[in-house]
Amino acid sequence: MFGAEPGRVLSIQSHVVSGYVGNRAATFPLQTLGYDVDVVNTVQFSNHTGYGYTNGHKTTPEQLAAIFEGLATNGLITHSRVLTGYVPGAEALQVVGVQIEKMKKDNPDCIYVLDPVMGDVGTGLYVSPDVVPIYKDMLRLATVITPNQFEVELLSGVKIDSLATLNAALIQLHTEHSLPHIAFSSIPLPISIVSTLSLPAPPQQYDRLLPTPHPPWFNAVGVGAPDEDVLVCFASSFVDGQLDTWAFALPTIDGYFSGVGDLFSAMVLAHFHPAQTSPLPALPHAVSKALLAVQQILLRTHLYSLSHAGPSGTATPRPFHAAPESVIPTDAELDSAAPLNPKDPRRKARRMRIRELRVVQERALISQDGVGWPGQRLNWSALLT
Amino acid sequence: MFGAEPGRVLSIQSHVVSGYVGNRAATFPLQTLGYDVDVVNTVQFSNHTGYGYTNGHKTTPEQLAAIFEGLATNGLITHSRVLTGYVPGAEALQVVGVQIEKMKKDNPDCIYVLDPVMGDVGTGLYVSPDVVPIYKDMLRLATVITPNQFEVELLSGVKIDSLATLNAALIQLHTEHSLPHIAFSSIPLPISIVSTLSLPAPPQQYDRLLPTPHPPWFNAVGVGAPDEDVLVCFASSFVDGQLDTWAFALPTIDGYFSGVGDLFSAMVLAHFHPAQTSPLPALPHAVSKALLAVQQILLRTHLYSLSHAGPSGTATPRPFHAAPESVIPTDAELDSAAPLNPKDPRRKARRMRIRELRVVQERALISQDGVGWPGQRLNWSALLT
Repeated sequence: MFGAEPGRVLSIQSHVVSGYVGNRAATFPLQTLGYDVDVVNTVQFSNHTGYGYTNGHKTTPEQLAAIFEGLATNGLITHSRVLTGYVPGAEALQVVGVQIEKMKKDNPDCIYVLDPVMGDVGTGLYVSPDVVPIYKDMLRLATVITPNQFEVELLSGVKIDSLATLNAALIQLHTEHSLPHIAFSSIPLPISIVSTLSLPAPPQQYDRLLPTPHPPWFNAVGVGAPDEDVLVCFASSFVDGQLDTWAFALPTIDGYFSGVGDLFSAMVLAHFHPAQTSPLPALPHAVSKALLAVQQILLRTHLYSLSHAGPSGTATPRPFHAAPESVIPTDAELDSAAPLNPKDPRRKARRMRIRELRVVQERALISQDGVGWPGQRLNWSALLT
Repeated sequence: MFGAEPGRVLSIQSHVVSGYVGNRAATFPLQTLGYDVDVVNTVQFSNHTGYGYTNGHKTTPEQLAAIFEGLATNGLITHSRVLTGYVPGAEALQVVGVQIEKMKKDNPDCIYVLDPVMGDVGTGLYVSPDVVPIYKDMLRLATVITPNQFEVELLSGVKIDSLATLNAALIQLHTEHSLPHIAFSSIPLPISIVSTLSLPAPPQQYDRLLPTPHPPWFNAVGVGAPDEDVLVCFASSFVDGQLDTWAFALPTIDGYFSGVGDLFSAMVLAHFHPAQTSPLPALPHAVSKALLAVQQILLRTHLYSLSHAGPSGTATPRPFHAAPESVIPTDAELDSAAPLNPKDPRRKARRMRIRELRVVQERALISQDGVGWPGQRLNWSALLT
């Protein structure tokens, strides 16, 4: 009568009142997939920091500890899965780390997806440096980590500039920390490297979300232009001394989007089933399903932002079939619909607002069945000779 | 390409990490209906207070004001609907009241659903007494209020013990505060009164959720037993000097459930369309749709709690076709599955946990189409003579 229940998740991340990052990007999609999600908010901000202006407060380490105490006293920490994202500061992260250690001790089968939110290639480290060693220590607790390129390099100490250094970084993380699974969200690679990987084109589900005929800058492998780098996502598992790495080519979408990594880690958590071996092993399956949901929502968000300049959508919808750099509305163009003083924070905010992930409006894309994003298993011995 | 969007909601309520009250009972159901919900959390507690033990913190009045400032500076307060629930303390409520007043001034068409969370008939006042005059002052801002019996009596000053005093309380609230709509969530009335109202039986959608054949204590009008009181919900509008009140008979479900009122007010907000006149006027339509969702989820939650004794569902499922008082698991019976010391907080917690509203698992019931819960327009002049 009640159907299969996928289980209870504890998600420890940031909360923004408006927009979709952190728990706001994770909770609703997980609930849409049927997960009973318990939500610890590490901050409560009006909006994400990409807006340029934000106001709000952090949950203090003492407050976090009190919440975990309340849950534990009532016997409510029985989650089969736990997810951590942005935690502000070393002391708060330490409280979270102690909690995860307890959960893994009580239930070694508890699946822990750790998103080591520390920085990005463009911005550098955006957390306090004393957070880094705590994350390094927490890697031993994780089932899956979902770092970006900056975080892989920071955690492994290996600068990635070739397939050999990529291989070295993955092996370092897997072996140093007994870390079984790495979902390396994306790295831009030169087309010369990517062509040796024989990566499949985006799936039909993705293509069908585009207006027809497709704009020329969305070609078969979704590359912005033939001379540009290609975004590649890697799913790497290290089981019984064997490295098994899968790669997925992703379309490049120009412009700034927030919460994409948070949605990705939540979807990896949702679709990771440790015992699975077929049609794909557990991690590439989870990454494949996660990428399908994330890339579709990202595309739909991008299309929406192109057609809605200004908070009330008053500007003329822009042609989609032009080159991407010419279809992203500028501040000046948004002003033509509703003029604002250049120093008015609302000027940047309305540009941010139309790029908030459309997880609610496009919720049907989250729960759709079918295969995931197509990937390719890497033959390391061939690639490294 | 993007479909009709129902709009943006600002919801100001409590947050619990685990379980479904306040924003946790409102946000996901509103999102499931397609609303883009901005979420201000007035507290962050581990779980609701019905568990007996809880830990966490309140958002201070200064923190609330800072969040609203951040939203306003970015031009993000453009909501077409706003919902307020539990706000801890007079000072915090004052901050919220100032914010709502601004929103209504900027956009008089903004629909404000005010749930004046102050107490209940069983427990009495559970907020500080200095909250009461602030709520009374805020009534003039509200489009719809969703009080329970205790709150109707407190706000109107009228003790309800007959149809005449019910009529007086509604008229007092409507006229004193220029309040157009009251969704009076439920009041137990003697069967002798209810029979004069000719209220229709529960709809088929509800009946279909029951195991067949129906247990004897769910009869056609859902009354626990013929000699018991009947729960009645009233939707009362006062437009152009005319009182238009509709009544809905509700099944009695034994046992303690939390968050029911919060889910109800969210669903009233979701389904209230001010210009609607057919097939029902705006408020009875919204209440009818809200009751259908709430009553179905409540029934499914009840059935689940009967079949899952203990947090891990280890106890033998209990027969459903017995009388209600004999199918609700007691602490002693839960102990037979997993013994706990009588003073262990987990003892009460596991009884609470299995009665958390199943909004996630039963999400299909939230978005289903079709007519709502059947109601009956009251002929006051006939009833009061």
